[in-house]
Amino acid sequence: MNNQKAEKTDQPLAVCLVSGGLDSCVTAALAARDYRAAFLHVNYGQVTEEREMKAFNDIADYYRVPERLRLAVDIGYLKKIGGSRLTDPGYRSRREDGIPDTYVPFRNGNILSIAVSWAEVIGAEQIFIGAMEEDSSGYPDCREEFVSRFNRAIDAGTRPGSHIEVAAPIIHLSKGDVVRKGIEVGAPLRLSWSCYTSSGPAACGMCESCRLRLKGFSAAGAEDPIEYDQ
Amino acid sequence: MNNQKAEKTDQPLAVCLVSGGLDSCVTAALAARDYRAAFLHVNYGQVTEEREMKAFNDIADYYRVPERLRLAVDIGYLKKIGGSRLTDPGYRSRREDGIPDTYVPFRNGNILSIAVSWAEVIGAEQIFIGAMEEDSSGYPDCREEFVSRFNRAIDAGTRPGSHIEVAAPIIHLSKGDVVRKGIEVGAPLRLSWSCYTSSGPAACGMCESCRLRLKGFSAAGAEDPIEYDQ
Repeated sequence: MNNQKAEKTDQPLAVCLVSGGLDSCVTAALAARDYRAAFLHVNYGQVTEEREMKAFNDIADYYRVPERLRLAVDIGYLKKIGGSRLTDPGYRSRREDGIPDTYVPFRNGNILSIAVSWAEVIGAEQIFIGAMEEDSSGYPDCREEFVSRFNRAIDAGTRPGSHIEVAAPIIHLSKGDVVRKGIEVGAPLRLSWSCYTSSGPAACGMCESCRLRLKGFSAAGAEDPIEYDQ
Repeated sequence: MNNQKAEKTDQPLAVCLVSGGLDSCVTAALAARDYRAAFLHVNYGQVTEEREMKAFNDIADYYRVPERLRLAVDIGYLKKIGGSRLTDPGYRSRREDGIPDTYVPFRNGNILSIAVSWAEVIGAEQIFIGAMEEDSSGYPDCREEFVSRFNRAIDAGTRPGSHIEVAAPIIHLSKGDVVRKGIEVGAPLRLSWSCYTSSGPAACGMCESCRLRLKGFSAAGAEDPIEYDQ
């Protein structure tokens, strides 16, 4: 079902990576302005996967993404591989390179590769990802340099004429800018979910991800529309 | 279990992608000369997966790869994404770009990304892949240009100091050269499995993969040690 070409309309097709968090919600809104967006959600054994999946579906419904262009894939192998507190709650890094324990080694390489495979099959020419340099605490695969080099690898590794390219429209924004941009383009921020530890109905407000999100809303002078325990 | 560092010995550690076919068997033999090899097998919904897995385990046993450095991951999502006769027997390409129906879009991008994640966690600095330009019938992600650009992406997308690099030691060899090289380095070719359609005990001898393999042995003036139906 997912490998059929989408119906032809005037708008070109783009794959949009939607974790269900704030950043991907705003990125999806940006993609939906110029493209028919095919939403891709990747589960890799996160503790809050179920809640993230709900956010993904809510945002996809909001943008009326047809069922066949909504793809959820499970890369539980990243949990098996380990090396991150996001997939193994007991994990603690022994390195002192400033990269937090929540870093999942080469996660974006894995996720973008899946998006490239799907993009090639459905004929999408853009892949939207909500990666951010500043607020991703030094994850190496969230940097523009990585995206740019990965694009050159895609160009060599796909069918001639595919012209698939990764777009990272919020990569240089701060979390406050992302909130502002989301409000400006009417992104359904109330449907997004960022919390790493709670699966709802309220977010914890305490984890690294909640704190970053709340800081973003505060910097934008806006109120976060989701509920918090704290 | 798989995320533990291997014991320290004099030899550095390398991840070696082992499908179980002829090319990966020879590549594993080359890796095992200079490295402690951690074997990685990726299942993506191939018809003959079970037989390939047996070949993987046989070759891993031959090279005495410890259990915790033998990792099998399932990326069945490539089957869900479709676009290849290898994962969907009914698939027929409508394109006329000379790339065969067995091409799985950006398969090596997906597989190498998994290898990078594992390499980073276990501290391996090399990733061996048995990709071959000439005999891979124009698969874009089997070309040296792809591997070289992917290496630049890895360098930007992994922890500073990881120094992970993909090595493709047989990329410019013909199938005949691979057989010759395999015999020269004592690769256990009898344990490898290449057939796309049969799961044994005998290979079909008729599919694209069997024919390439047989052509290779013939060019090397050697006899293929595995059984054939035809």
